[in-house]
Amino acid sequence: MKTPKVWFDELTMREAEQAAKNDTVIIIPVGSVEEHGIHLPLCTDSIQPEYIAQEAAKKTRTLIAPPLRYGVCNSTRNFPGTISIQFETLRSITKDVLEEFIRNGFTKFLILSGHAGQSHMAALRLAAQQVIWNHEKQKKHPRIQVCSDYDFAYELKGKHFDEKDGHAGTIETSRVKAIKPDLVKTKAQKHYPTIPRFEVLANPETYFPAGIIGDPTTATTKKGQMINKCITEQTVKLIEELRK
Amino acid sequence: MKTPKVWFDELTMREAEQAAKNDTVIIIPVGSVEEHGIHLPLCTDSIQPEYIAQEAAKKTRTLIAPPLRYGVCNSTRNFPGTISIQFETLRSITKDVLEEFIRNGFTKFLILSGHAGQSHMAALRLAAQQVIWNHEKQKKHPRIQVCSDYDFAYELKGKHFDEKDGHAGTIETSRVKAIKPDLVKTKAQKHYPTIPRFEVLANPETYFPAGIIGDPTTATTKKGQMINKCITEQTVKLIEELRK
Amino acid sequence: MKTPKVWFDELTMREAEQAAKNDTVIIIPVGSVEEHGIHLPLCTDSIQPEYIAQEAAKKTRTLIAPPLRYGVCNSTRNFPGTISIQFETLRSITKDVLEEFIRNGFTKFLILSGHAGQSHMAALRLAAQQVIWNHEKQKKHPRIQVCSDYDFAYELKGKHFDEKDGHAGTIETSRVKAIKPDLVKTKAQKHYPTIPRFEVLANPETYFPAGIIGDPTTATTKKGQMINKCITEQTVKLIEELRK
Amino acid sequence: MKTPKVWFDELTMREAEQAAKNDTVIIIPVGSVEEHGIHLPLCTDSIQPEYIAQEAAKKTRTLIAPPLRYGVCNSTRNFPGTISIQFETLRSITKDVLEEFIRNGFTKFLILSGHAGQSHMAALRLAAQQVIWNHEKQKKHPRIQVCSDYDFAYELKGKHFDEKDGHAGTIETSRVKAIKPDLVKTKAQKHYPTIPRFEVLANPETYFPAGIIGDPTTATTKKGQMINKCITEQTVKLIEELRK
Amino acid sequence: MKTPKVWFDELTMREAEQAAKNDTVIIIPVGSVEEHGIHLPLCTDSIQPEYIAQEAAKKTRTLIAPPLRYGVCNSTRNFPGTISIQFETLRSITKDVLEEFIRNGFTKFLILSGHAGQSHMAALRLAAQQVIWNHEKQKKHPRIQVCSDYDFAYELKGKHFDEKDGHAGTIETSRVKAIKPDLVKTKAQKHYPTIPRFEVLANPETYFPAGIIGDPTTATTKKGQMINKCITEQTVKLIEELRK
Amino acid sequence: MKTPKVWFDELTMREAEQAAKNDTVIIIPVGSVEEHGIHLPLCTDSIQPEYIAQEAAKKTRTLIAPPLRYGVCNSTRNFPGTISIQFETLRSITKDVLEEFIRNGFTKFLILSGHAGQSHMAALRLAAQQVIWNHEKQKKHPRIQVCSDYDFAYELKGKHFDEKDGHAGTIETSRVKAIKPDLVKTKAQKHYPTIPRFEVLANPETYFPAGIIGDPTTATTKKGQMINKCITEQTVKLIEELRK
Repeated sequence: MKTPKVWFDELTMREAEQAAKNDTVIIIPVGSVEEHGIHLPLCTDSIQPEYIAQEAAKKTRTLIAPPLRYGVCNSTRNFPGTISIQFETLRSITKDVLEEFIRNGFTKFLILSGHAGQSHMAALRLAAQQVIWNHEKQKKHPRIQVCSDYDFAYELKGKHFDEKDGHAGTIETSRVKAIKPDLVKTKAQKHYPTIPRFEVLANPETYFPAGIIGDPTTATTKKGQMINKCITEQTVKLIEELRK
Repeated sequence: MKTPKVWFDELTMREAEQAAKNDTVIIIPVGSVEEHGIHLPLCTDSIQPEYIAQEAAKKTRTLIAPPLRYGVCNSTRNFPGTISIQFETLRSITKDVLEEFIRNGFTKFLILSGHAGQSHMAALRLAAQQVIWNHEKQKKHPRIQVCSDYDFAYELKGKHFDEKDGHAGTIETSRVKAIKPDLVKTKAQKHYPTIPRFEVLANPETYFPAGIIGDPTTATTKKGQMINKCITEQTVKLIEELRK
Repeated sequence: MKTPKVWFDELTMREAEQAAKNDTVIIIPVGSVEEHGIHLPLCTDSIQPEYIAQEAAKKTRTLIAPPLRYGVCNSTRNFPGTISIQFETLRSITKDVLEEFIRNGFTKFLILSGHAGQSHMAALRLAAQQVIWNHEKQKKHPRIQVCSDYDFAYELKGKHFDEKDGHAGTIETSRVKAIKPDLVKTKAQKHYPTIPRFEVLANPETYFPAGIIGDPTTATTKKGQMINKCITEQTVKLIEELRK
Repeated sequence: MKTPKVWFDELTMREAEQAAKNDTVIIIPVGSVEEHGIHLPLCTDSIQPEYIAQEAAKKTRTLIAPPLRYGVCNSTRNFPGTISIQFETLRSITKDVLEEFIRNGFTKFLILSGHAGQSHMAALRLAAQQVIWNHEKQKKHPRIQVCSDYDFAYELKGKHFDEKDGHAGTIETSRVKAIKPDLVKTKAQKHYPTIPRFEVLANPETYFPAGIIGDPTTATTKKGQMINKCITEQTVKLIEELRK
Repeated sequence: MKTPKVWFDELTMREAEQAAKNDTVIIIPVGSVEEHGIHLPLCTDSIQPEYIAQEAAKKTRTLIAPPLRYGVCNSTRNFPGTISIQFETLRSITKDVLEEFIRNGFTKFLILSGHAGQSHMAALRLAAQQVIWNHEKQKKHPRIQVCSDYDFAYELKGKHFDEKDGHAGTIETSRVKAIKPDLVKTKAQKHYPTIPRFEVLANPETYFPAGIIGDPTTATTKKGQMINKCITEQTVKLIEELRK
Repeated sequence: MKTPKVWFDELTMREAEQAAKNDTVIIIPVGSVEEHGIHLPLCTDSIQPEYIAQEAAKKTRTLIAPPLRYGVCNSTRNFPGTISIQFETLRSITKDVLEEFIRNGFTKFLILSGHAGQSHMAALRLAAQQVIWNHEKQKKHPRIQVCSDYDFAYELKGKHFDEKDGHAGTIETSRVKAIKPDLVKTKAQKHYPTIPRFEVLANPETYFPAGIIGDPTTATTKKGQMINKCITEQTVKLIEELRK
């Protein structure tokens, strides 16, 4: 028996029409093009949610929209390789994509972001909020979940990982090792920088010049698999919640 | 010897820094999520320029930015499966991405779009024009080529293909057969609709209800390979022109 | 017997009210302020569609809105005398004017532009598209044709004129000679420049420094009258099409 | 001897270049498409400043930009025939036109509006203010005067005309009689309506249903000529002030 | 017996709900942060309408929204201490606040501005106009009065005060003396500057370098009380008019 | 000896000029108009940071800008009394105010918000970020801290207060009791609602219909004083950090 397609845009128009009739959940993966130390690729934040989305989609017969691979990256903006779009642009494209799926008849969405910066997440939530309000008076109004896979990944801190682990640290390096091992280089060192809590900075990179927060040296494929499994389970739960 | 990477976001930050120092040409593939008859997938306009970009990048050691997979689709908007973003959104994200690559030190760009709608192309060109003007006084000012792979594909009409071949017709179906054969279904028929030339319509789909302009029944993998080869050659020429 | 008025704004409010009740077609002429070589005036793109509009209006009892005399001129922007408004501005004023005529009860529009630049035409079409969508659910929805008089003029190439004739060349110079002979100077020479096909340029004028594409030396009043007659006939057909 | 041209866009590009070198004053006439009772045409606010501009331009060898014939009309919006553009649109086109003349080397401007509504004038002034600030640090910064010809016309009240004379009343009807007598109908009556002073209304027309404020029955061509002469003199003074 | 609250935001949510049911008039005081000579505080334009609003609210059992304390100050922009927001910002916040009160069920508004600059007042009126139009088709449509307390204060000129009295002059200084005497310094001198009537200036302050128009030396608390009383009475009338 | 003024807009223009020369820190308090249960006033989020700002300003000789009393309230939007401005409006006014203080010569800012909603805080941070980037190349570039007083208040949870205490709960009620006891009503009950973690909702109020999260019954003035003292100390530290 053939595996059903998980990518929305691999469908033909008639298959898309049928999926809308079934009120299939649509996962919208969002990533970024952002430095992740000297050891991880710029697509780190993209490949993680896309991997999770595929795992969860296979288990739940949902569909994945073409990923948004550009995000808003304020704190890493000045590192080489970071391509950060404007807040308004991310907000607009997210809103447009949601509105168009709704126009097609879909009503259930999970926006899953691999990047978890405050402005980036705010843009996604604002887009979702505007869409929700646009349709609040229609009979079957849409439902939208917005989360980062790091909302789940960081719940494993304390018990399994260092509380201070963060950007390009143990968790993230492990996850990429489990997803795309060929894209991980081996020489990064650990860094536990102190970053001002409230100041909005022109040059935040001066506070973590390696572009790393945490310890990539202890990252392993096995840890990555465990984390990805946990996140997939949480993601499946969110999808099931949408179906209720 | 290892094949060099062609996708920009598979680089690490240090590799990206080096690529900027080399003033590597950046190809930005742009697609759409759009009906293409009952036989072609919604990603038809995305996979074509991404394929060409990869072929051309391998031959020229250029890099490909993460694709923009959402476009502006006015005439097919009301068919199932079309997800069309607003003109302003496409313009903004194109401008943002160009500006960010320039901030990173890159100066040579090829925007290659698989979708060739008038508004869609206008958004890409307007974004490019604004970026060019923003930097016209700087020492090394950027250069940007904007084209659709159909600017080249349709040059093969007359000699090789019907003059009226178009959306989801012989050329396009052949090309997708050559790139992703498993995504092509076999039952589509030929259609040569008459569409009003100047009227801006609320329901253009009523004029071509099959979503097809041309004859998909004569499409073959071999024709597709020939077309893709021609387009790749033209694309390589544009890249070489940028390097002069 | 008195000739009926062709200019909408020469009506009084009661006459305007009656015209709306009659569902009179409204022609909106759009021009530009743009260099046209050393021999043609900056208003070249304005006086042509205004002339055609008057000829067509007389034959069809339609009305002409006050002309939009500023357009978007990217390729000639750096020549002296070009006054180019922003894409967004042209789009907004076109949208506003259409929406206001619709609010007054009119539903049939022909936007006729003497300037035919890609961005300029895209702005007009986008405005029309947005208006069409704004009203797609109302009972009597509006209809809008958008064209340039050069869509018709250039159909005469090959048979009557050089295929490469263009901006300020034989056709355009002939037409202005037929409309406003006193505004045409006599010394311009022919130019058949080569302009990059896909590159978006900061200084396109370096590729055609005379601001001319074609051969103004072979322009005659008689040719101009013939061309204007052809265009008027096509324009009348579009108006009749709107009335169906 | 030939009369010099007064309309900027009747120049060729070389003549425009020379005018910029001479730092010629540019008059920008602004009008509206607005009801003016049953006796005056919708172009009433356009033809008045265009007439004054021509008279003043001839006396001072200045140039007149293509008129902006659409304005912002809040209080008369619901009368038949009024075509009112949005505040932002008027502001944008005014700013664009000013910026483009400045890019061409011009620095002295008189914006002369026949319509004098508060929002309309605010849009013109805001555009001018923004342009002035954009260039405040350049060596030869631009100078812009913004006025309505009614700033001068209404100074004749009290002595020559009723204090309450206004829209489509004695002064305005007289002026149009002196400029375009064939566009004036004869049957309008006098109206001295009471309009709420501070309330922003959805239906202001209910307070002056004839669309007239004042007494058109006492209007004469001779009065109109006198008024137009006064306004022309004031306008010439403003131009001379710009040249200092 | 307890004095009823006059400030809307001192209510609890249940009290706010009740006030909406009563269709209580909402006064929105608008001020500015603007130089007022060497003798008056920057909040001069804020404390005057807030004082009037409180006096009028007490007499009429209306409620006062939290004041907008930032305005648009073009002519005094370059004096120390002026904090001027953009036209669009004032317009947006005014529109948002009105729309939200309407969403809560309120329908009667008085916008009372202490600052009376043309652009500033235009922003307030445009916001109100847009809101009025947004709701013109709903059953109980909102009503909005927009005025400056100086619309009333300056009616006392001629009879009681110098015709040329203006910014930080006798009237304004007297009023602040009557409201917040401890914020008035005593050394300012009189100034009757001549300011260009129509020119939009980059540096208007050069025409009135003291930041004063009028004679603060003749200001007294008693005059201020008289003026404030008059304005309060007029304001009460406007509120009563809204209640009809 | 006289107490120095803490409110910026109580200064005259000369005093403001001197404060800019001293590079005085400017505190910008931001609040909201938002339901806070049946027991707290709508201005709860405004009076808290204004109180803290005054306490901190007195201790540090800093100045307080006129408060922004309208915020972005998504989750409480549908309760009576909530007046929520748009994200863009809060962002614009915050940016404008910062830019204008910078134009006046000030460079050190603390934005202190009593409301701590995600979108609301994102708007403040985005405004600050944009301003920081606008000036990143100038010699003395500005510094901006952005925080909510609840960033500090909630650090007291666990040790002193229930971990689940939140909106209108023990901490907030205690603080308002300590600041404006006359505005606190006594009958509110405790509520520990469960709110969906990731779903963006049209009607979030259905999950906490009392508008309360926490236990207001255990609130006391003394607790409020303690909390306010702690927050003031933290705020003073941030100001001292800015002065380094």
